[in-house]
Amino acid sequence: MKQALGIDVGGTKICASVINEKGEIITEVEKYETPKSLNGIKDIFKNIISKYENDVTSVAFATAGAVNNECSKVISSTGNLVEGYRTIEFTKLSNKPVYVENDANAAAWAEHIIGASKGMANSIMLTLGTGVGGGIILNNKLYKGKSGSAGEMHFKMYPDKRRHCTCGSYDCFEAYASGTGLKITAEEMLNDKNVTTYDVINSLKANDKKMTDVFNKWQNDILMGTIGLCNIFDPDCVVFSGSMAQFIDTDYIEKETNSQIVTQPTKILKAQAGNYSGMIGAALLALGVN
Amino acid sequence: MKQALGIDVGGTKICASVINEKGEIITEVEKYETPKSLNGIKDIFKNIISKYENDVTSVAFATAGAVNNECSKVISSTGNLVEGYRTIEFTKLSNKPVYVENDANAAAWAEHIIGASKGMANSIMLTLGTGVGGGIILNNKLYKGKSGSAGEMHFKMYPDKRRHCTCGSYDCFEAYASGTGLKITAEEMLNDKNVTTYDVINSLKANDKKMTDVFNKWQNDILMGTIGLCNIFDPDCVVFSGSMAQFIDTDYIEKETNSQIVTQPTKILKAQAGNYSGMIGAALLALGVN
Repeated sequence: MKQALGIDVGGTKICASVINEKGEIITEVEKYETPKSLNGIKDIFKNIISKYENDVTSVAFATAGAVNNECSKVISSTGNLVEGYRTIEFTKLSNKPVYVENDANAAAWAEHIIGASKGMANSIMLTLGTGVGGGIILNNKLYKGKSGSAGEMHFKMYPDKRRHCTCGSYDCFEAYASGTGLKITAEEMLNDKNVTTYDVINSLKANDKKMTDVFNKWQNDILMGTIGLCNIFDPDCVVFSGSMAQFIDTDYIEKETNSQIVTQPTKILKAQAGNYSGMIGAALLALGVN
Repeated sequence: MKQALGIDVGGTKICASVINEKGEIITEVEKYETPKSLNGIKDIFKNIISKYENDVTSVAFATAGAVNNECSKVISSTGNLVEGYRTIEFTKLSNKPVYVENDANAAAWAEHIIGASKGMANSIMLTLGTGVGGGIILNNKLYKGKSGSAGEMHFKMYPDKRRHCTCGSYDCFEAYASGTGLKITAEEMLNDKNVTTYDVINSLKANDKKMTDVFNKWQNDILMGTIGLCNIFDPDCVVFSGSMAQFIDTDYIEKETNSQIVTQPTKILKAQAGNYSGMIGAALLALGVN
């Protein structure tokens, strides 16, 4: 069975492992803190690749930032990684073919092949973490748009509220549906600058009324965005992944979505491909598993 | 050259003409008021088809309502047409192959083949009229979703405003960006129930300050929706069509969109395939022109 070296490059961690065509992780996952310097990042890439490249048919990166349609380089910078990150010539890092994909896109592909959206031609994945990532699978293919950067979940939720968004604009879905969005919703509703995402989640268990209202507002904003995506895409499913996805009531969102959309009923699911879905999805893409 | 009979079925009018592979209208366009009865509609279909079917290789319908992925029947009712419309067995109406497509989808295809988005792989068309229609072309193919009903531009604009939408839900893009949306925005801003879309448009020419503010609010809502679609799809272009599109400043929307999106720059264009683009696009689809 063919296998690829999967390398996941995030703002805080770099992970790597050899992955086979079934999407199975077959070496212990190596983990590094993401260096603050470009050379530091390149050194980690070199070390990992030299260790494994003889055992694999290709090297697959799942990375923060948008990746071009040729899957060879990062085309838009990401605030989480050092300046100059997108100058890296990924294809020159190994003697083996190198494949690069955006981490949210790669994770959506892992769900499509081995996870929650397996067997479904059209799915949207929303990764709810500090920010919001998006991956779009249409007609059993990853949809990348004209440049490779499609799937940015920066559509306006409340274009009159002027809540700042990480994209430089304001009022985007990400600014409401992310973990950071939950904190800001809590700040606004409780008039308390010091409240944290953790405070909200933790108080839910104690049935705190105010915190439950905050959580419900956050979840309702996610529902509103989901309804729009279902009317636009008529997908087989929407998959929620990321650290914040565990708190969402997908049954509730599915019921409400299907009662409001004009397209046909959609499944709302939680991701199943695990914490390394980005690395796994990139490897599956590099191995041509579809 | 092959030719198809194109039939456009709208809430107020039914139009028909023979159309060739170049998208040229080659018989005088027949026009009928849309009957209020199902049998009345069927009778018009029969008359048109019997007159032309010997001259064409196929019969192509562009119709209100969502159409299934097999392009054979209407799957969701449309408020503008009589009850039971979707029970029509289109494929049995002629001895020739019959092809059915949603009118907004068909119009988007006409723009893709002979109009504003010609030569571009990924385009979104927004038809601004009494309501808002949507057509999505991705990777040079019409995107229809799991059931055929994709491209419904019912994503939430202001999920807290409770402006009713024709879809049965509220606060959708359609409820703001349509001609009807402009009237309601005018009602709200001017506190006048009797103001019309025509009043706003007409007063623009006279540089009326209040009406200009209303128009700018409407156009800004369209801009907000466009930014979201460009971040989601990273399209080559967004094409505005329909009776309200003529009033939009596409240069302004293009400049503002490209200053706010995180994806790569997009063209904002006005439709060029004319008033019969739905009929033409359906014929081109039926003739396999791509």
